[in-house]
Amino acid sequence: MRGAVIGIVIGLVVGVVIGATVIAPRLTSPRQQAGLGNAGGGNSPAPLLPAKAKPSVHWKMASAYPASLPLLGTLAKRLERKIWRVSGGEIEIKFFAPEALVPSREIFDAVASGAIDAAFSSPGLWSGKIPALQLFAAAPFGPGPAENMAWVYLGGGRELFEEIYRKNGLHGVFCGLATAEAGGWFRKPIHVLEDFKGLNMRILGLGAKVMEKLGVVTSGFSEGDLFMALESGAIDAAEFSMPAIDFQLGFHEMSKHYYFPGWQQPSTFFDLMINLDKWNALSSTAKSRIEAVCGDNVRHGLAESEAMQFTALKEFTAKGIAIHRWPAEIMEALDGAWREVAAEEAAADGDFRRVWNSLTSFREDYAIWKELGGP
Amino acid sequence: MRGAVIGIVIGLVVGVVIGATVIAPRLTSPRQQAGLGNAGGGNSPAPLLPAKAKPSVHWKMASAYPASLPLLGTLAKRLERKIWRVSGGEIEIKFFAPEALVPSREIFDAVASGAIDAAFSSPGLWSGKIPALQLFAAAPFGPGPAENMAWVYLGGGRELFEEIYRKNGLHGVFCGLATAEAGGWFRKPIHVLEDFKGLNMRILGLGAKVMEKLGVVTSGFSEGDLFMALESGAIDAAEFSMPAIDFQLGFHEMSKHYYFPGWQQPSTFFDLMINLDKWNALSSTAKSRIEAVCGDNVRHGLAESEAMQFTALKEFTAKGIAIHRWPAEIMEALDGAWREVAAEEAAADGDFRRVWNSLTSFREDYAIWKELGGP
Repeated sequence: MRGAVIGIVIGLVVGVVIGATVIAPRLTSPRQQAGLGNAGGGNSPAPLLPAKAKPSVHWKMASAYPASLPLLGTLAKRLERKIWRVSGGEIEIKFFAPEALVPSREIFDAVASGAIDAAFSSPGLWSGKIPALQLFAAAPFGPGPAENMAWVYLGGGRELFEEIYRKNGLHGVFCGLATAEAGGWFRKPIHVLEDFKGLNMRILGLGAKVMEKLGVVTSGFSEGDLFMALESGAIDAAEFSMPAIDFQLGFHEMSKHYYFPGWQQPSTFFDLMINLDKWNALSSTAKSRIEAVCGDNVRHGLAESEAMQFTALKEFTAKGIAIHRWPAEIMEALDGAWREVAAEEAAADGDFRRVWNSLTSFREDYAIWKELGGP
Repeated sequence: MRGAVIGIVIGLVVGVVIGATVIAPRLTSPRQQAGLGNAGGGNSPAPLLPAKAKPSVHWKMASAYPASLPLLGTLAKRLERKIWRVSGGEIEIKFFAPEALVPSREIFDAVASGAIDAAFSSPGLWSGKIPALQLFAAAPFGPGPAENMAWVYLGGGRELFEEIYRKNGLHGVFCGLATAEAGGWFRKPIHVLEDFKGLNMRILGLGAKVMEKLGVVTSGFSEGDLFMALESGAIDAAEFSMPAIDFQLGFHEMSKHYYFPGWQQPSTFFDLMINLDKWNALSSTAKSRIEAVCGDNVRHGLAESEAMQFTALKEFTAKGIAIHRWPAEIMEALDGAWREVAAEEAAADGDFRRVWNSLTSFREDYAIWKELGGP
């Protein structure tokens, strides 16, 4: 009996030491990666991703964009990869392709209810539910990327955005940014305002409302149907994205006239939308990590979208696409129509009005700097 | 004996379990903060900073800018704060004010030798050692912030930057960005090119070489002496920074004519400069954390610098400062003089030539997009 007690004591002491110093570090090995790799000087290559981590945060993220889509899809994948690395494997935000978890149009409700944890999308996609969100994604004739960042992060935009999301059971972190879109593809050139009358065009959201003021008949085809409609001549024009993305999708095979600038989207924010309870349950460290990785994703999105367009434009030119700038008369008419649309939306909806007033007031001040600071 | 063996086995098993699950987690408590805060729903506020962390990385960072200086100083402090939070207290990069660790002009050598671990500064400060570094900070008539980001991160700029630093025993991570500077303060208005002849101006680096081509006598006063010289009339003009910073420093009390745009600095990068051996010794997780926090600092720097200028400009106007744009004749002469300076620098130094060629070639391509994409 005495032998057994002594044995238990010896075993306990040795076991605790082994457990704390040998077993536990192996269980938590990803965390070990957080500090200095190895004192010997780092010659043995560390694996890029900790292999056996057991994440504390394990979220499913519905992406509104397929992984293969330049920028939009790759920014969502970049978020998944970077948050894993920065957290040493403690935070997993797993990318799921569109439709894999829920139908894409149900993403907003699915995150709000907690059925899925998070989504990578753009606030503008939820205009059917909350019209004001469009102003956080891309406002027609609105700010370019740098001005948009100034308003969102330091001009009051983010606070309004978070307030609107919070009312809907959500928290949003701006998590990507794209520079200006193109103005769209047309089967025939647009010379005068009259050419818009009766034109059938695929264009969404606030841009569509502006076009309708000028006599365009708009529709909101999804990607697949859109190509068929444009190729067959069932529609006359389509607005989709930036040159690099339009190139990958092959719009130049279906129409020959490409217009600039993309007045309807001078810059576009993307966000990580998170169920509010799940956000609130995070530690401050986990929140900091998501905010830093998303902030870096905004930086990367702007840099990449600015860098990726000229190659596509060269290709279009080589393929004989006619690249046009909108005639001044048309830009003025579009701008005027947008002011009407904005006034109508603001009159119809309190949140839209508050966000529009904030953005407009910021831009009036910013104009003082923009006029002087630019080249 | 049999009892003792059984006892040791039982003790070992229990001990390993206790060691791995009870003792070890307490040893690593700061890391626990990385995941979910508390399962109860997060009502008890977590401390903003883990209080008792023992950092694995504990660096001293010499800042080239005082903490109180808007943007330049606050970006360095932001880096210190954010890297601590994102790492859950595992990485400490401690801010030291200018001159606190080493004289500011010795920062480059002190980091290269390992005498200090890191520094927050701008590559342009080391032009005396490596002229090419000026092109990574701010090139006269160079790219604005978004184009600069496109070149640095996706156009080959970063790779050249890292190569040049590496040859000097350093690793650099771009860690802040500022929008355009102002063109400078003048005691008398500048109407024609002739007004530059014999003018005494405080201006540094490549901008100074451009001004000298046009007959300006330049000098490189430090901040304190500069104010005395400008107030007393010992110099006629001075270029320092952006409106928000120039306002805080009180330039409007010493001269009344403020010129735009700041052709000499259309955007400025800042960086975290790290001793190369210390960077190489970091784990991949620690590297990811520094890169994400610095990337987010670039985003923040651009947003904040774009948002902070108009308030200062309003104040200047209220105080009767005359705000001018450079006459077209002068802008053309400055641009021409810069081309001469750039050609001379490229002829004199191989690294400058390589970086200049990379930047110039990128900008030729980017111009295709810039012309179309902008409003």
